[in-house]
Amino acid sequence: MTTFVVVGGDAAGMSAASKAKRDDPDLDVVVFEKGEWVSYGACGLPYYIKGEIQSIERLVSVTPEQFREERDIDLRTGHEVVGIDPGDRTVTARSNGEETVLSYDSLLVATGAAATEPPIEGLDLDGVYTLGSMTDGKELREFVARSRETSPIDQPDSGPACQYLEDCSGPVGIVGGGYIGVEMAEALAENGFEVHLFQRGDRVLKGFSDATSEAVADHLDEQAVSVYLNAEVEAVDGRDAVQAVVTADERVPAEMVLIGTGVRPRTDLAEDAGIELGPTGAIATDAHRETSVEDVYAAGDCAEAEHVVTGDPVYVPLALTANRHGRAIGRTVAGTPTEGGGIAGTAALKAFEIEAARTGVLDHDEAHDAGFEPVTETIEAKSRAGYYPEGGTVRVTLTADRDSGQVLGGSLASEYGEGAVHRSHALVGAVTEGVTLGDLSNYDLAYAPPFNTTWDPILTAAKVLESKL
Amino acid sequence: MTTFVVVGGDAAGMSAASKAKRDDPDLDVVVFEKGEWVSYGACGLPYYIKGEIQSIERLVSVTPEQFREERDIDLRTGHEVVGIDPGDRTVTARSNGEETVLSYDSLLVATGAAATEPPIEGLDLDGVYTLGSMTDGKELREFVARSRETSPIDQPDSGPACQYLEDCSGPVGIVGGGYIGVEMAEALAENGFEVHLFQRGDRVLKGFSDATSEAVADHLDEQAVSVYLNAEVEAVDGRDAVQAVVTADERVPAEMVLIGTGVRPRTDLAEDAGIELGPTGAIATDAHRETSVEDVYAAGDCAEAEHVVTGDPVYVPLALTANRHGRAIGRTVAGTPTEGGGIAGTAALKAFEIEAARTGVLDHDEAHDAGFEPVTETIEAKSRAGYYPEGGTVRVTLTADRDSGQVLGGSLASEYGEGAVHRSHALVGAVTEGVTLGDLSNYDLAYAPPFNTTWDPILTAAKVLESKL
Repeated sequence: MTTFVVVGGDAAGMSAASKAKRDDPDLDVVVFEKGEWVSYGACGLPYYIKGEIQSIERLVSVTPEQFREERDIDLRTGHEVVGIDPGDRTVTARSNGEETVLSYDSLLVATGAAATEPPIEGLDLDGVYTLGSMTDGKELREFVARSRETSPIDQPDSGPACQYLEDCSGPVGIVGGGYIGVEMAEALAENGFEVHLFQRGDRVLKGFSDATSEAVADHLDEQAVSVYLNAEVEAVDGRDAVQAVVTADERVPAEMVLIGTGVRPRTDLAEDAGIELGPTGAIATDAHRETSVEDVYAAGDCAEAEHVVTGDPVYVPLALTANRHGRAIGRTVAGTPTEGGGIAGTAALKAFEIEAARTGVLDHDEAHDAGFEPVTETIEAKSRAGYYPEGGTVRVTLTADRDSGQVLGGSLASEYGEGAVHRSHALVGAVTEGVTLGDLSNYDLAYAPPFNTTWDPILTAAKVLESKL
Repeated sequence: MTTFVVVGGDAAGMSAASKAKRDDPDLDVVVFEKGEWVSYGACGLPYYIKGEIQSIERLVSVTPEQFREERDIDLRTGHEVVGIDPGDRTVTARSNGEETVLSYDSLLVATGAAATEPPIEGLDLDGVYTLGSMTDGKELREFVARSRETSPIDQPDSGPACQYLEDCSGPVGIVGGGYIGVEMAEALAENGFEVHLFQRGDRVLKGFSDATSEAVADHLDEQAVSVYLNAEVEAVDGRDAVQAVVTADERVPAEMVLIGTGVRPRTDLAEDAGIELGPTGAIATDAHRETSVEDVYAAGDCAEAEHVVTGDPVYVPLALTANRHGRAIGRTVAGTPTEGGGIAGTAALKAFEIEAARTGVLDHDEAHDAGFEPVTETIEAKSRAGYYPEGGTVRVTLTADRDSGQVLGGSLASEYGEGAVHRSHALVGAVTEGVTLGDLSNYDLAYAPPFNTTWDPILTAAKVLESKL
């Protein structure tokens, strides 16, 4: 019997296991997961903490029982893989002090990522949190729930604690203005906390365009979230528990601090087995997601992948890539060699009543390094026909190559519901296919007054940037 | 001085005039428009008739005065062009019984389309309307307003007359289940009319997929619009004014009938001048929208254009194409030869609380004629993450070529606000670029729980159809 062993039971691992077993039911598929949760939607944690999702189990798309019984996968939770021997083609897993050694024909390393710990004093104090796992999510939800209980005001049974209140809880600090930081600013503010968000650089969401960052920061400000830019946090201050966040310039009181400064790939296991890392520090793979070791694959938040615009390896740990690459590996292992495709660095988020998305290459240094001469322009346009009784504003940033006109990247922001995120789908196609601004501006996009102006804002952005080349 | 003459002052004509004058201020630009309205958004008429837009002037994006004073265009409203002489390079226009003969260096024929009159008896009765012009829109709005006045119930000052009422007006008939018919069903039903919609074929919105047609028809039914399929209207019945719609099977009382059976290109002027029509019956043009006569261009609802998938000429009279091709002609005339691009047959609409879009080739006969072996599949998927507290369902139909996997067309429907229309933008790119299902399913589309599932419904549709090839 042929055995496919998977290390790590989240998106990449379970996608690969499910697809492999489905395509080849004779395959023996074994998944080792060190924790108890598998196939969970970590992206939903901010909404669980906020109180919009009542049970953390709702974030689990398929339960361990379903994987075992319905999909016939040998899923072993509570099993930590402690060694891979590519020579013998075995993995060693540990559970409750006992070791199991299992032979594999194909192996997937899907060990995920861990929250980074920045060089800040006081991170061991009570009241310092990260948000990298389901357990982290539960702890943050409990923190919010405790604040609700100690609040003197009657709370509704469900929903954000303070949806009818201006302020029922104390000040909290968030270190890091990426998506976790911004989404958690909403989750905490909507529960009545006074939120202080500290960003080391000069804008939030640094992977997005300047204009998108500004739109989001302005909106956070309108929602009474205090955003501190160019604010490197030096210490979290307190006796036993957190009392304040300290930067070079100020000391801001806080009864809780969330560290949201990004993640790093978990590569120890792969490195110990002699599997090569790439220039990003994540596991290197080829187009089939195979590592430097034959029949050993890597996917998800521990691995890098090639960028569709530059062709260079990049590390962008996000859910769709994990699912897509996991599925491709599953097909490959089951006998149909499948490339999972590159990544465009696409990302999206909602924060209060604003939505934003980005894709491709926006950073001019990155574009120069890849041999392009980048030009960037941002337009503001109505999200629906001017005469239509509802609507808002879409801001579209496009970056293109001056010589060829090739679309390199895009970034959009709009009011929530006005379509910045779904409109970004068209730009993902444009950057993936390498189309020019001239081609894009001629796209026969759908138009009707309740959805856009005759020229959708994407087309307007393409026309305006083309005129600047 | 070089003179650019434009016949027709709506989207194509005014786009061309504006762009030509902007790019080459020395150009003499003369526009003849037989009516008084120019550059109006006819697509907004259903919302004006519904009562969501209070003044018809709001549909005008640029006024005649602005064109004359700000854009320095010699706009002559109330001037009907009655002849083109390509030999002499002149046009003859008539106004108040006087004729003007003007020489041109370049000429644009943008004479638009007229509502078709199907072979139905009784179309001369009072109470029979079409919706092809601003005047038609005013008349329909007045009909709705009269019904409001005669209603015994106090009306709010603005908004649909019967937004708080079950039924305050009588029965009305709509002949034709295309977008005008469906949008007007909403406009009239929201004003309290009992709406009967008659469709000759076996489904509404025949250019969309079967699944989209069904979703829209089901929704119309939920909104108490009576939809009659396979119902060829034989006569409109009444003494002086309309009293009923008569089909082979039944006689349905109606106090008003709207004929919405499509439009035909206005080509008489071009034909008289010896300009060739294409196989669709609209004016034939090349990639620069030049007609068979040198320096005479045609664009907008009177002209055909090539389909991006099949390369064949098609007649799809819609606003964006008119704007885009008009603009391209303006650039060309001003010295920069510009192709306006093909069309994908993209269309979108909202009806009550449902939205729908379509693009590319969905019809199997059309696909076969173009040398493809079409395969079609429809999926239903959640519009947001399953655990997210809001959301609905997106139905995505994709058609692809069995051999190559090339995406030929797509059709989507969702609840209003759940993104069917903006998601269609990605499919326009896919059909325009000729990407395969495999490529599309690997697109790194934006994902976040408030906007979609990890695999956006578009990706799921691509995966499912690919598995059926």
